[in-house]
Amino acid sequence: MNISIVKIGGNVIDDPEKLEEFLALFARLEGKKILVHGGGVMASKFGESLGIKPKMVDGRRITDAETLDVVTMVYAGLINKKIVAQLQEFRQNAMGFTGADGNLIRSSKRPIGKIDYGFVGDVKEVNTDLLDLLLAEDIVPVISAITHDKKGNLLNTNADTIASEIATSMAKKHMVKLYFCFNKAGVLIDEHNDDSVVPRINEEIYEELKKDNVIHSGMIPKLDNAFAALQKGVSNVWLGKAENLLLAAKGKKSGTNIERHKYDLY
Amino acid sequence: MNISIVKIGGNVIDDPEKLEEFLALFARLEGKKILVHGGGVMASKFGESLGIKPKMVDGRRITDAETLDVVTMVYAGLINKKIVAQLQEFRQNAMGFTGADGNLIRSSKRPIGKIDYGFVGDVKEVNTDLLDLLLAEDIVPVISAITHDKKGNLLNTNADTIASEIATSMAKKHMVKLYFCFNKAGVLIDEHNDDSVVPRINEEIYEELKKDNVIHSGMIPKLDNAFAALQKGVSNVWLGKAENLLLAAKGKKSGTNIERHKYDLY
Repeated sequence: MNISIVKIGGNVIDDPEKLEEFLALFARLEGKKILVHGGGVMASKFGESLGIKPKMVDGRRITDAETLDVVTMVYAGLINKKIVAQLQEFRQNAMGFTGADGNLIRSSKRPIGKIDYGFVGDVKEVNTDLLDLLLAEDIVPVISAITHDKKGNLLNTNADTIASEIATSMAKKHMVKLYFCFNKAGVLIDEHNDDSVVPRINEEIYEELKKDNVIHSGMIPKLDNAFAALQKGVSNVWLGKAENLLLAAKGKKSGTNIERHKYDLY
Repeated sequence: MNISIVKIGGNVIDDPEKLEEFLALFARLEGKKILVHGGGVMASKFGESLGIKPKMVDGRRITDAETLDVVTMVYAGLINKKIVAQLQEFRQNAMGFTGADGNLIRSSKRPIGKIDYGFVGDVKEVNTDLLDLLLAEDIVPVISAITHDKKGNLLNTNADTIASEIATSMAKKHMVKLYFCFNKAGVLIDEHNDDSVVPRINEEIYEELKKDNVIHSGMIPKLDNAFAALQKGVSNVWLGKAENLLLAAKGKKSGTNIERHKYDLY
């Protein structure tokens, strides 16, 4: 089957009005679909109101035990359930998940290297049989960025990575399109100008843009995830604003389409 | 099929050690099963640490918008996901739910009468097809005490009521046993003495014990739920301590077995 996997980021999630607009669009996206969400900004705000300061290294959250509790409450509780309830109103049979639910995503705690990330999981296995079962029933899985190690531990996991891992796992049997919705119009030549979108990018262009420091910091793991997904069989990867999701799905000009090396096309 | 529906209360949920012991027992319960949980005490504590005072009338929580957020975070996030992850460790394919997920439990907001309960839902419909599908796959649904109105709203709902409503809905097609685990050894003649358990109770005895004020306050809605379930086709209802769940399941002496009127037996 054809499956769309859509990842939304904090800029949409943190704004109830934007979120509702996005979910109305997402509801109109045709065919089988899966939604993946993070919620980092809201978790940070909420943690702070409990006196827990967010701890970040290189844009990654350090997850100690109390931060894990906050993340679990905010991602799997508040955000996930609000999205599910709203999609139900829009006649989508949404069902919320963490990786622990139905053993959907098994991960292993990241080994301590230079940095101890704490309760952070690296994805090991996606339960594609479960997703097949749910999608066949026209259920829309809504997946929050938490996994588990099957040893009783929940683990915080990057939402882009989860979207990418689900996409590549499902691509073994299905035709998968992956949409990363974020706060910019796509890959930009001038990061402050939404009109400077690069409409198509491949690995050669990516390397050049990194060398010239046009692409840097948070965009790098995002694009690495995108290219990894393409290399593992995902048909299309798109990057852009949530409000342009339907344009992208219809192949109209918007955002950045990510493509593989030319030599991979042979 | 035969289905066990088990409800656990705050006294187990609030104590990580007790919870783990209970979940190890629950994992050993044979056959198809569903777990229902509340978590009111933890939600109250947590709300207070955010400066939100619990508002109660007649033992029922008044749920304003900020309390609903807290309840959603604590029930559907923290508690539900910890239970699911722990059960996964015990080789149970647990999957967490609110009533919004997969439209599992649709409710309607309680009309404002003498008391305005706020965002509280009265159960209207249980999606038994979804439960049938999951149980057939050996999935163990873990259901937190939140429902939805299919109009985008989450609604706080009494966990005993949810257990009872699921039991009666599933009893239309299946043989259902309902277990209420709580902080006492069963229905007690002397509420401070766990040795004073009434081993069997029917509606006549219930009416007498209410008249004599032996059964009062929080026990009344609990037993009302139990009798309602029996009247609607549930095979057995049991009330007792979580640690005696397996004894009860094996028909050994423990807790209180709830039975219908004598005249219903003809």
